[in-house]
Amino acid sequence: MAYAPSAPELPESFGQQLDQEARYTYAYPTNQLGSSGMFSAETHPDIVTSFESAGGNRSGFLDESELRHALSFSGYQGIRNRTIRFLLFIYKTPGESLLRLGPKEYTELCNSLAQWRAMFDRYDRDRSGKMNALELRDAFYHLGYMLPTSVLQLIISSQFDDATGNTVDLCFDRFLECGMIVKSLTEKFKEKDPGYTGYATLSYDTFMSMVIPFIASYD
Amino acid sequence: MAYAPSAPELPESFGQQLDQEARYTYAYPTNQLGSSGMFSAETHPDIVTSFESAGGNRSGFLDESELRHALSFSGYQGIRNRTIRFLLFIYKTPGESLLRLGPKEYTELCNSLAQWRAMFDRYDRDRSGKMNALELRDAFYHLGYMLPTSVLQLIISSQFDDATGNTVDLCFDRFLECGMIVKSLTEKFKEKDPGYTGYATLSYDTFMSMVIPFIASYD
Repeated sequence: MAYAPSAPELPESFGQQLDQEARYTYAYPTNQLGSSGMFSAETHPDIVTSFESAGGNRSGFLDESELRHALSFSGYQGIRNRTIRFLLFIYKTPGESLLRLGPKEYTELCNSLAQWRAMFDRYDRDRSGKMNALELRDAFYHLGYMLPTSVLQLIISSQFDDATGNTVDLCFDRFLECGMIVKSLTEKFKEKDPGYTGYATLSYDTFMSMVIPFIASYD
Repeated sequence: MAYAPSAPELPESFGQQLDQEARYTYAYPTNQLGSSGMFSAETHPDIVTSFESAGGNRSGFLDESELRHALSFSGYQGIRNRTIRFLLFIYKTPGESLLRLGPKEYTELCNSLAQWRAMFDRYDRDRSGKMNALELRDAFYHLGYMLPTSVLQLIISSQFDDATGNTVDLCFDRFLECGMIVKSLTEKFKEKDPGYTGYATLSYDTFMSMVIPFIASYD
């Protein structure tokens, strides 16, 4: 059973469909860290190395430029400044006023990035390095989000490559932003719809509080 | 009666409070144009002059760089590229795939900008050229939007000036973006809450369609 009542038909290409439970959970690692704030023994060594190579072992945190360095070290080159700040905003400890990540938050980010990257590579079927609307639909479907065509078109139509106003397919970092936003908004909606009816009753305050964090100026 | 049930107390400073109807309507000019697509005789001559000076009289439209020129001519200097694209996206004719404005859309934009500018100048009480959280709250209140403190804090906390992660007060173009987004989201919410109960029942599709247009990458 799909989440959204008006979901499109399941494409035939989905032979490897995940089971229901897996489609509604998107695994984040559990807290792997002791109270010391150091990396746990289970952390992938590449994550520790990239954190340290960017200078995180000195202050215990990565700031914006250090995070760019660490991600570049990990193979994520050319990510826009806007996306870097978005990631900092989304992954920083709630209540932390500075845009910076400690070992725990950085580990979570890295594990999440790896999953989004695998998703991107899997659904970028023509290996163009960009994701078009159909590929995007399939990727979201895999995540358990049955986005109506109108919403997909809105996502695509709001991506502009240049001043001509022409819309473009999504490169990885825009896919990442869109994906994280859709995932987060969907999860917040589902919290208000525990019976999976496809409808939620929201107060004005709740509605605004759900939405505002994603319309920040990250540039 | 205020719209949001959890609205803060009315500040004493609001001697010139608008009446109920005015507080819920934010006047846009009615369609002033004939089918020819030319400016109507009622259009302020400065609007026509700025449109023509930017080259709009040649193609009949203003694109991104022409709009920047026209707005600069009209006294709006230094508006970020992101905001220019945001304005194009919000004011272009629905269904128009190119980011460009004709005379009608440009007139609406200019009238709207003048109102936001007057609002900014009125509530920037310390004449700092920036709007802090309290001034922002008062300005939104004047518009009829009783934003809870938590939402105001989210708006402010999502504005970053630089890589330090320090939050900043809003300059005019960020105020403009925030204001237009809050106004638009509130109006969409109210469409789903015709009885002004402060609550709305939304389908997942509706919720996503309301929100996604404001999460675009305008840079």
